[in-house]
Amino acid sequence: MKIAITGTGMVGRTLAGFLSRAGHSVTVGTRNAIETMSRTDPNGKPGFKEWAVDFPNVPLKDYSEAAEGAEIIINATHGVKSIEALSTVGSANLDGKVLIDTANAFAYQEGAAPVLAVANTDSLGEQIQRQFPKARVVKTLNTVGAPFMVDPGRLPEGQPTIFVSGNDGDAKSQVIQILKDLFGWEDIVDLGDITTARGPEMFMSLWVRVWGAVKTPLFGFRLLK
Amino acid sequence: MKIAITGTGMVGRTLAGFLSRAGHSVTVGTRNAIETMSRTDPNGKPGFKEWAVDFPNVPLKDYSEAAEGAEIIINATHGVKSIEALSTVGSANLDGKVLIDTANAFAYQEGAAPVLAVANTDSLGEQIQRQFPKARVVKTLNTVGAPFMVDPGRLPEGQPTIFVSGNDGDAKSQVIQILKDLFGWEDIVDLGDITTARGPEMFMSLWVRVWGAVKTPLFGFRLLK
Repeated sequence: MKIAITGTGMVGRTLAGFLSRAGHSVTVGTRNAIETMSRTDPNGKPGFKEWAVDFPNVPLKDYSEAAEGAEIIINATHGVKSIEALSTVGSANLDGKVLIDTANAFAYQEGAAPVLAVANTDSLGEQIQRQFPKARVVKTLNTVGAPFMVDPGRLPEGQPTIFVSGNDGDAKSQVIQILKDLFGWEDIVDLGDITTARGPEMFMSLWVRVWGAVKTPLFGFRLLK
Repeated sequence: MKIAITGTGMVGRTLAGFLSRAGHSVTVGTRNAIETMSRTDPNGKPGFKEWAVDFPNVPLKDYSEAAEGAEIIINATHGVKSIEALSTVGSANLDGKVLIDTANAFAYQEGAAPVLAVANTDSLGEQIQRQFPKARVVKTLNTVGAPFMVDPGRLPEGQPTIFVSGNDGDAKSQVIQILKDLFGWEDIVDLGDITTARGPEMFMSLWVRVWGAVKTPLFGFRLLK
């Protein structure tokens, strides 16, 4: 499959690396590819440039160019910048396509847990679907840290549960197939239409506080019946 | 222990019945005890009057009278009415007391999932703590249906995880003891101060949608590490 991923952070890199190694044709999109490749992390973490050394088959391109001809687009940008990023990708590249939205609209605050830039009466998933009405938006994977997305079985106590929300049944089926067959997810709950994205997005308010309590992002939640 | 419970719905009844049978002195508070005892449910469900027949040791009183002399107050009113109800209970009955807040501020909407009357930048737990600064508020149990609160082991797949939030460490320890020893909760996560109540309260946005997806309120979420 030809897959375009917007976003060069942990989520974008994790998904791009995994999908490329699984044999897919992956392109990563960013606002300005030259700028991203020259960037060094202020905290000394590896930049995209260092990551890209191991993935010569994953080209980095400007947003609109990266998405050209892609069958599936994965939004892995920071949630508060997703609408802007996808606008640069452009409707022409999104119309009719499966658009997997993995983002969280965390508005970070000094010395306090982040709040959500959109919540309760709306969600990022819905905002994206409204902005690009012909894209087939599926919200998923936002409730787990990047390492889990492509390796859901990494916890000794078992797999977390993962959720999907979206208006297009065929697009959701295709995404559920990818979650199962490519990534290895076992417990997938289809919550319903895109308005149900409010649930997994607001769940992140609990998620950040559990991280604070258990002192590691390596945890998950499993639905028990 | 002398325990006052505000609210005569499913949560109030479940907690009152269980705690009374466990040998505690329980009083239930309502806005107008005479009115509550004369009420019949418009949907034909048993009213408080019918429930009370089985619990002659659990008196129903007006809010302020019910809370007189109680060591612990449990808020089991509907979240959007909790502040009003607790104001009727009165600071004199709440100051210095452990106040367990189990409520969710669901604002119900015709034909759509409920939104939260408070979320993201504030929470019901915080509102209650601000309104009654000398009460020792502990938010807990709001993330599970009433039957789980006093019987956490009822799911074949295991116990859900439960959360506590609050500013007063001693109050939280006391509540954790009650959760463990009285109700049987095994997996309890202390999220931190009362601002962390935003997490479990916003989680309910996911909870109502999972209910819609799995078609039963008999489910829970377990923290996996």
